[in-house]
Amino acid sequence: MNGANSLIRTLVGHGVDICFMNPGTSEMHFVAALDDVTEMHSVLALFEGVATGAADGYARIAGRPAATLLHLGPGLGNGLANLHNARRACSPMMNVVGDHAISHRRYDAPLQSDIETVARNVSAFVRTAETTQGLGNDAVAALAAAFGPPGSVATLIVPADVSWTDGGVVVPPSGMRLAGTGGTRPDEAALEAAAAALRSGERTAILIGGRACAGELLDAVAAMAATTGAILLAETFPARLERGAGRPPVERLAYLAEFATMQLEGVRHLVLVDAKSPASFFAYPGKPSDLVPPGCTVHTVSAPDSDVTAAVAGLSALVGATAGTGHRQQATAPSLPAGALTAQTMSQSLGALLPENAIVSDEGNTSGLFVPGATAGSPPHDWLCLTGGAIGQGLPVAVGAAVAAPDRRVVALQADGSALYTVQAWWTMAREGLNVTTILLNNQSYAVLNMELDRVGVEVPGPRARDMLDLTRPCIDFVRVAEGLGLQATRATTAEEFSDQLARALATPGPSVVEAVLPSRL
Amino acid sequence: MNGANSLIRTLVGHGVDICFMNPGTSEMHFVAALDDVTEMHSVLALFEGVATGAADGYARIAGRPAATLLHLGPGLGNGLANLHNARRACSPMMNVVGDHAISHRRYDAPLQSDIETVARNVSAFVRTAETTQGLGNDAVAALAAAFGPPGSVATLIVPADVSWTDGGVVVPPSGMRLAGTGGTRPDEAALEAAAAALRSGERTAILIGGRACAGELLDAVAAMAATTGAILLAETFPARLERGAGRPPVERLAYLAEFATMQLEGVRHLVLVDAKSPASFFAYPGKPSDLVPPGCTVHTVSAPDSDVTAAVAGLSALVGATAGTGHRQQATAPSLPAGALTAQTMSQSLGALLPENAIVSDEGNTSGLFVPGATAGSPPHDWLCLTGGAIGQGLPVAVGAAVAAPDRRVVALQADGSALYTVQAWWTMAREGLNVTTILLNNQSYAVLNMELDRVGVEVPGPRARDMLDLTRPCIDFVRVAEGLGLQATRATTAEEFSDQLARALATPGPSVVEAVLPSRL
Repeated sequence: MNGANSLIRTLVGHGVDICFMNPGTSEMHFVAALDDVTEMHSVLALFEGVATGAADGYARIAGRPAATLLHLGPGLGNGLANLHNARRACSPMMNVVGDHAISHRRYDAPLQSDIETVARNVSAFVRTAETTQGLGNDAVAALAAAFGPPGSVATLIVPADVSWTDGGVVVPPSGMRLAGTGGTRPDEAALEAAAAALRSGERTAILIGGRACAGELLDAVAAMAATTGAILLAETFPARLERGAGRPPVERLAYLAEFATMQLEGVRHLVLVDAKSPASFFAYPGKPSDLVPPGCTVHTVSAPDSDVTAAVAGLSALVGATAGTGHRQQATAPSLPAGALTAQTMSQSLGALLPENAIVSDEGNTSGLFVPGATAGSPPHDWLCLTGGAIGQGLPVAVGAAVAAPDRRVVALQADGSALYTVQAWWTMAREGLNVTTILLNNQSYAVLNMELDRVGVEVPGPRARDMLDLTRPCIDFVRVAEGLGLQATRATTAEEFSDQLARALATPGPSVVEAVLPSRL
Repeated sequence: MNGANSLIRTLVGHGVDICFMNPGTSEMHFVAALDDVTEMHSVLALFEGVATGAADGYARIAGRPAATLLHLGPGLGNGLANLHNARRACSPMMNVVGDHAISHRRYDAPLQSDIETVARNVSAFVRTAETTQGLGNDAVAALAAAFGPPGSVATLIVPADVSWTDGGVVVPPSGMRLAGTGGTRPDEAALEAAAAALRSGERTAILIGGRACAGELLDAVAAMAATTGAILLAETFPARLERGAGRPPVERLAYLAEFATMQLEGVRHLVLVDAKSPASFFAYPGKPSDLVPPGCTVHTVSAPDSDVTAAVAGLSALVGATAGTGHRQQATAPSLPAGALTAQTMSQSLGALLPENAIVSDEGNTSGLFVPGATAGSPPHDWLCLTGGAIGQGLPVAVGAAVAAPDRRVVALQADGSALYTVQAWWTMAREGLNVTTILLNNQSYAVLNMELDRVGVEVPGPRARDMLDLTRPCIDFVRVAEGLGLQATRATTAEEFSDQLARALATPGPSVVEAVLPSRL
């Protein structure tokens, strides 16, 4: 058995049976081995950023790692932006990066570069496999790092001759715990202090992130908030937030520091559960980055490497909160809008039509501003955010989520400028017949940057600056781009058209695109 | 004057007056300053790989650096693959990468990452500017490294507060020498040994690369070859090779080691002029990577950091070669083909129609196999190759070449699979009205990998492996993709259609795409 074969068998044995890939020559033995190990499912991407983003989306929904297969340093580089997002999402995943044969290194061939250095930017684990015999163990070490906590990006670099040489050893499964579980035991003093804050009667907020945004942990923090009267907030861009009718209503901390400051105004105690102390997304001249209000004490109950289950259970016991007693979101649905198609009416349509158990991959940016409000009372669904701020995440994460949950409807809420970074994802959706409905929000500009240009203190931007944020010369026809990549696509210019097209797209199995033509300003 | 303003003024003063950009919030002061310093021309890309590839293409044609403007670690990551190619091309260029404000670092905001580490993979110079006052000097240091020799990628990371703070100092031009000139003086003993080899009467080859593939240096090595009877070869993927009627005919070393071995068979002396000792592109099981024939002596006359002008002059004098005495390619043109459109007939059409002084950005891969032969006697032109092997170079390099030489016709010879990595370049061509004709070679597969799958020793690939190299589910409609991105596009399915469409595209100012539908196998 060659190395590649042993690597795939070891991965499959550990429950990693999906590989998002964009291979090249140095990965051909891995590709060839796919016919020997049919338990490994492979999904082809036309660009590495699609593969890495898909692995992230897969992990957020499946709760376990996928693998990627990437081609040397440039392939890893192309995947880096979405690996950055995956790192911020604490998504467990494993990159297999092919490299030149060890015997070939000394020639400094054209594709050679320092892969380990590139990988370090995003990876909690980086290793180059040096022997075929050791490759299975290398893979297990990578997976252990990926499982965390925190869930992490692990990168294993595999020279071509390590893959092709015989002598591979399959490492049997070793009872690895679930991704993100276990971790540092809670600090009892910190729990006591947080409990005292929650019982103090002073204005207190619980800020949740990461693992606390879903399932039993979300129920438990909601019960604590209800029991103690604390405000319940989520970090700005959680990896996965469960929300909708019947679930705890959780407001996310605003992206704009001005609004986040209002949300936190007067808070004397801030209890962090798998979240970081709030800071603004960017710095702005003359404005503080730190969003913790003056005089507020911060209590960290659980960090990403903590045993969050134990921490939440401990704190719940201290404040006397009982699971299931938190507030629940009532079912509400906006009525279908009429007239002009705007960010508001688009949001109303989506709120009215979002199907039960949907997954929303949200890279709507400025055009998506009103969507959280309009969908708050929609049937229960999952919300996947732009965790690391590196745009080009939305479509790839939708791919991975749809692969993880083939029976659920995925809605990719996708801004135009950001879509263009990884638009190749549409082809993979078509190829795999994924149930992804893309809502392409076309406002013909990098609108967020027009806003940021003001916010960073440029009061009257000149025409040359504005021109760098403009997407109208020429306007992009996303229907044609989508059709070119093999998808059904329609364009909506009124609210009625949008509702009709969205309803049809959501009801039709497989992928399609609805391009919503929006005004260039909110 | 703020830092951003001083940075742009310093760049312009040093002759860097083009910036290919994809900015974000942390670069907004640089963008705003474009209205103050109108000498800086800015070209917007929808994806960073387009910006970095365009800077590479610009440098190859203009012979001087462009700047890029990129958004933090993820933006640099997206540009990394084409920076890898630029590094291999020894293209001088300078990345300006925005970062969070220094005061913001401690919050580890979502977009924060270790930018310097990512940059090291491709950059000869990496520095983070720490003060506004020092930013101009930082830029000059980066440019000095970019100019080389060897021409290099320099990366300057600029925190947002260094950009927005007042106190910037414009550094006046300091008589920097031309990119790639100067360098290590030739080793007289090495020149003597190479001259002795050339005069020995034994089978000798001169292998040229880098700066020796154009202009007076190319003339001089051709004269040496003619004077001594040596074989004249170029490296497989030169950054820029001048060729065509009236110029020295130079055969490139084949990509396939099997053919390269034949080209070098029996060679007893190999004289390297700005080229590396030949090795195969990839390693293959049981085959040598080193392509130097047994018993052959290698003489390095000039390396990328050498003073190549002095080395070539010295060697010419030693062998008594006179400039202008080398062989010259006769003007020949294939006749326009009829019938089926294949890799061969497509090449014949291009050979017949290639306009004088054209620039060919060649990422034709397997479908482009016959093009060099068919265009050898076409009117003089420049050929830009995939220097680092990282696909997705072709269209961005065409953008940069067209910006550098607006009066010349650029032909992007572009394979389908590779096109999809940076297809966003088409939008920039449309926006800037660039004279780029893309020939999109659509054979519906990663054909090179089908070939490589055989070559790495997989004798009977299974259906699951073959499926990972297949681009037919769904077939990509490149005409629609191009139209969606704002270009005129047509599709040719016969040789006659292709010739007609290509002739029209070449005669029409501005960009367009001709999709050549080719058989899936050569």
